Parts: sequence; C-alpha cells; structure tokens
Amino acid sequence: METHAHLTPLDRLFLERAVELAARGIGNTSPNPPVGAVVVRDGRILGEGYHHRAGDAHAEANALRDVNDASGTTVYVSLEPCNHVGRTPACSHTLADAGVSRVVVGALDPNPKTNGAGISFLRERGVRVDVTDDQRARAMIEPFGESVCSDRPYVALKIAMSLDGFITSEPNVQERITSEEERLYVRDLRIAHDAVMVGARTVRVDDPLLTVRPPHDRLREYVRVVACSSGSVNPASRIFEPVPGYAKTVVLAPAGARERFADLAGVADVLFAGNDDATELDLHAALSALRRERGVQSVLCEGGPMLAGKLISSELCDRLIWAIAPLLLRGDLAVPALAGNGISGKRLRFDRVESVGPDVVISGVFERV
Amino acid sequence: METHAHLTPLDRLFLERAVELAARGIGNTSPNPPVGAVVVRDGRILGEGYHHRAGDAHAEANALRDVNDASGTTVYVSLEPCNHVGRTPACSHTLADAGVSRVVVGALDPNPKTNGAGISFLRERGVRVDVTDDQRARAMIEPFGESVCSDRPYVALKIAMSLDGFITSEPNVQERITSEEERLYVRDLRIAHDAVMVGARTVRVDDPLLTVRPPHDRLREYVRVVACSSGSVNPASRIFEPVPGYAKTVVLAPAGARERFADLAGVADVLFAGNDDATELDLHAALSALRRERGVQSVLCEGGPMLAGKLISSELCDRLIWAIAPLLLRGDLAVPALAGNGISGKRLRFDRVESVGPDVVISGVFERV
Repeated sequence: METHAHLTPLDRLFLERAVELAARGIGNTSPNPPVGAVVVRDGRILGEGYHHRAGDAHAEANALRDVNDASGTTVYVSLEPCNHVGRTPACSHTLADAGVSRVVVGALDPNPKTNGAGISFLRERGVRVDVTDDQRARAMIEPFGESVCSDRPYVALKIAMSLDGFITSEPNVQERITSEEERLYVRDLRIAHDAVMVGARTVRVDDPLLTVRPPHDRLREYVRVVACSSGSVNPASRIFEPVPGYAKTVVLAPAGARERFADLAGVADVLFAGNDDATELDLHAALSALRRERGVQSVLCEGGPMLAGKLISSELCDRLIWAIAPLLLRGDLAVPALAGNGISGKRLRFDRVESVGPDVVISGVFERV
Repeated sequence: METHAHLTPLDRLFLERAVELAARGIGNTSPNPPVGAVVVRDGRILGEGYHHRAGDAHAEANALRDVNDASGTTVYVSLEPCNHVGRTPACSHTLADAGVSRVVVGALDPNPKTNGAGISFLRERGVRVDVTDDQRARAMIEPFGESVCSDRPYVALKIAMSLDGFITSEPNVQERITSEEERLYVRDLRIAHDAVMVGARTVRVDDPLLTVRPPHDRLREYVRVVACSSGSVNPASRIFEPVPGYAKTVVLAPAGARERFADLAGVADVLFAGNDDATELDLHAALSALRRERGVQSVLCEGGPMLAGKLISSELCDRLIWAIAPLLLRGDLAVPALAGNGISGKRLRFDRVESVGPDVVISGVFERV
C-alpha cells in the first residue's frame, strides 16, 4: 500500500483535526480503535465525527451525518476506512455512496485481515485515496494494532525511577519520587488502556487504589488487575474497594493454587489461568485469559520490579514508558527498577522523549530479534 | 542588573551569531570564557570577532578591528564586556571610545568581582546597554562561571548507562553500550573542557587512550587526568603514551603514599594532594591542586562508578551528563552506574534532554541545599 502520498499543508491540518477528534474516543472504543473524520469541501469543514464506542456508528458515518450533500468532498480519516459489515455498515461503502471524491487516510489498519480492502474498494469506485503514515495517527492505534495480531492484550509497562535506576531508597517503603505532572501523565495512560495492572507485592506494600484521579468519565468500565505470581493478597486491600464505573478488580491467579485465593471469593474477580497443576502464575496464559474471558485488549502495567522484569523477560511487553525523576537513590537498600532474570541484553528503540514537569519520560519498543 | 531587555527578532539573530562566533573559541580560551561579538549598523554586519585565547585580543576588539567608523553601531556580544585592564585594554573602554551607541549583552559575567562594572561604565558614557539572559550564551560560560566562584575546577560528570541503570553486564569487561553518535557527542565535551578525568579502576579495566578522535586542533594542550583513590596504575597503560598536543598525563595521588607511585615518575605528571599522612585521595584537595598548580579550570569526568559516586557524595560535581542507551543490562553481575555511599537523596534539576542517535542524553545540575 502506497503510504507516501503528497499532502499539502492544509491536508495535514485537516488530518490533524481528524486525529484530534479521534482522541475523544480514547478509552471508550475498545475493542475498536479510536477514529476521527472530517468532511471538507473547498477548504471548509462541513462535518466532523468520531467513533464513540464499539457498536455505535463509525467516525466516517458520524462525520457525514449532518452533511446534506457530500458529493465532491474530501474526507480526512485518522485510520483506513473499514470494508467490513458488522454491527454498522462498511465505511468504504458509506463514503463511496455519499459521493465523496477523495479520502485522506492517516494510518493503515494494522489488522492483517483488512489488507487494504476498504481502500481498494474506494479506488474501484473512482474515489481518490491518499494514504499517509501520520505519527500521531499511528500512535493512537498502537494498542489496537498490537492486540489484533496477538492472542493477548497489548501491554504497556510504566516505570518511575531515579536517574540512577532505583524506585525507592529502601524496600517496603512507599515513596513517590516523580512529580505531580508525571502523575497526571500516568492518569491519562490509565484512561487510554482497558485495564491497569500491578503485581501482588505492590498491593501489599503500596496498597494503591489504582483509580483515575481527577475522575474521567469513560463509556467503558475501568478494570484493575492484580497479578499474583505466587502469594495472594489481603482481601481488605484498597484495590478491592468497589468504585462506581470500575469493574470488580480482577486477580490473575495460578490454576493450581485455587485454595490460596479462597478468601478473595466475594471481593475480587479471581481469574485462574495456566495448567491445573501450576502453582505459579503463567503470565502469558493469564494475559490471554484476561483478553479472552474479560475482553481486555490493552493493559497498562505499573509495576513492581518483579512483575515488570517478568513481563520483559517473557517478551510480553509491547511498550516501555520510563519516567526518570531528577534525583539519585543509590544506597545499600535501594530497590532497582527491574528484578528477576532474563532481562540483560534486551534492546529497545526509543521513539519518544519528553520533559514532564521536572521529570523526563522516555518511551520505546523492544527490538524484535 | 536588568536582564529582561526587549530584543527584536533581528536583535536575537545577531546575538545568536555572536554566540556562534564565541563557540569557535571553545577549548582554547581558558582560563577566559569563549566570547563572540558582532558589529551592526542599519541591519548590516560590519565586523565579527571572537576571543581566540587568553592573552589575545577580546571578542569586542576583534570585531571592531576592521570597522573604519564604528560610531552609531550596535555591538552584540555573547558575554558582558569586561571593565578590567589586563593583558588587553578593557572592552567597555574600547566600545565607548569607538563611538558605539548600543551594546546588546547575551549573558552577565558570573564573576562576582565584575558586578556589572563594564555595563555601568558604558551607560555613564551614554551607550545604551540591553542585557538579556540567552540560554546558549549562558551555557557556553557555565564552566567559567562555576570555577571563578570556587577554589577548584568546574566538574562535569558524564555517565553512560543502560535504561535500567547499569554500565556493563559484568565487572572487568569493557563493553561499549552507547552509540557512535554518543561517542562523537562526548568527543565535543572533551574538547570543551580543559581536562578529561577517569578513575584508576577505569584505567585498569578499560585502558583508554582518552584522546579526542577524530582529532580537533586546540590552541591549549589537552590534559588527561587519572584519579588514584587508593591503588596506583600500571605505567604501561595507554593513557600515559605521549600524544602530540597532549600534556603529560596527570595522576592525582594521596600525599601520604608517595612510594606507591614511584614507578610513574618518568611516565606521568604525579600530583600529590592532601595531608602528608593521607593514604587515600582527598578529592577536593586534589582538584584544587589541579587548578592551582596545573591551571585546569574545567574537568570532564568520564567515570567509573566509584569516582563518579565520590564526586557526587563530596558535592564536587557541577553538572551531570547522563547518556542512556536503549537496552537493559540487569543481571546478577551487572555494574550499577554509581558506587559508594552518600548519594541517596541528592536532587537535580534537569535542564537539557536530547536524543543523540539511538540514545537519550539527560543533563542537569544539582539542587543546592
């Protein structure tokens, strides 16, 4: 598929607007990706729309809704239009039937099954289609793109550490080292991912609520997940407190240790995974179950070091989001950002670096070997 | 001193040019800072100059040299003009005598003795002076500014580590983890600082040459320094090989352990520091001696972890330059970026973040408590 279309500066502005509209669906659209669309004639915007939630109209249909006559218009859409009749009509048909003369696409659909079918259909119907590879458009569908090619959810791993690589100056101490700005940055990440996950040890030590504060009204329920690799957690932990808009907290537990989780029965949604004789958690099996049985397509993991290390060594981590606080913590008791084996030598490609308040956030993806 | 002068966009461009000219003196001007100047009339550049080396003409005089009539001109100068007659006339007098009608200053002279005397003189002579605080102009004089307020050289500490905080996957192994782009970045840092320093252990393990490659012709000799905290180093180490343009390598050694360094006598410039009964290196005393007895005003320290840790815990580090490679190294034998005690809790202010090839470089200064 040609992705080097020549776009004019105005084309880029309208596409940017489509991406901005798409962002309004962040957190709501799963298992679909967020998509936005803008209908333009002679440099004027006639209609705008975005995909609100799975099952509702797609972005293109929403953008065309209030346009009496779309013939001869250009439609800017953040993601390649679908060619698939599901709960809603295929967008490629909607666009062609409306008489649209040109479609500008911000990013290709990463679903290999799609294979450009919508674009081919439009071109066959005489619609000019310009496909580009817009960085923001692509970033917005990253979780969707990874999860459609896999049997497990997309996993982003977020870590906050000191410049010299430690998360606290001593074990079992709750210590916030990053800034309020970084907290708000992570808040937005929590909104954007279907679920937020921590390890059992983090629940024991930090006892986090793991909610979105200040609140953000999401069309889908928030999901909190605790991965219990070997031990269990206290049913009185704050993470199990019922919160409106939040599903019952999921506990990922090894299928061979059911008795260990008996006291969580009424409190949590315990999801047993792996073989019936496994007393330690098979993370891959647990994540697959989370997707298959709870419909979770994307997970933001917020630590701790054991779970983070295991996600990396098991190659279950799609993106690292690494916040670095401007302080040093080295000392005999300081806790390193990652724990466990099988990490050394893993290579990444950094693709985002930004200052977030006084902190720096570096983000990247692992090199596939 | 007023530092919020209103500069027009053209003012800023000419000032930028002055800073660019100043940069040509980087590495050559110590103990003076690099300074550049531009003479402008009616929006046209009539003269340009920079300070080549200590003892030579100052930037202002060089810029005015080829201007027949400087009356009514504006002179943009990266650093506040001096008011001090030394080996060359005071720049404030040179400017006033030339009939310059306006001077735009990129940064104030951090030397407390200066106290704006040149600016006051110019204003008394009827010259309009606009002082701004240009980030690049200020950065260029940072080593000078710190060292004039101290009895020791300015110390920049450069560390290269993996994202998770390690410098190698196992001890005593030489392993380059950062990129060629980062190596060239550090090359420029070596040029900009009077001396480059490493610890004895780095000499033993890595046996570096510590030269500038590809070569950069500098008007001052390069200086290489080995800090020997307790043990000595092999006289056959590459760092002692004579290189044209490089001074005999300085070894900082404790004054109470002279016999330990006997075999370095002909090979190195051994500088004993501290009390006569000290068998371990007093870093502060050693750095002060390096400045007092060898005229070194700025030092780039390139590790290792022990020396780096000691510089930080002793509050002898003025700037951290922290290169982060896109890989993970955690493992049982991995060597952390810093060693030693007294580091935990030190706070920084990050003021520069940049991508350098595949790596990220974060730089900052310590918060003064």
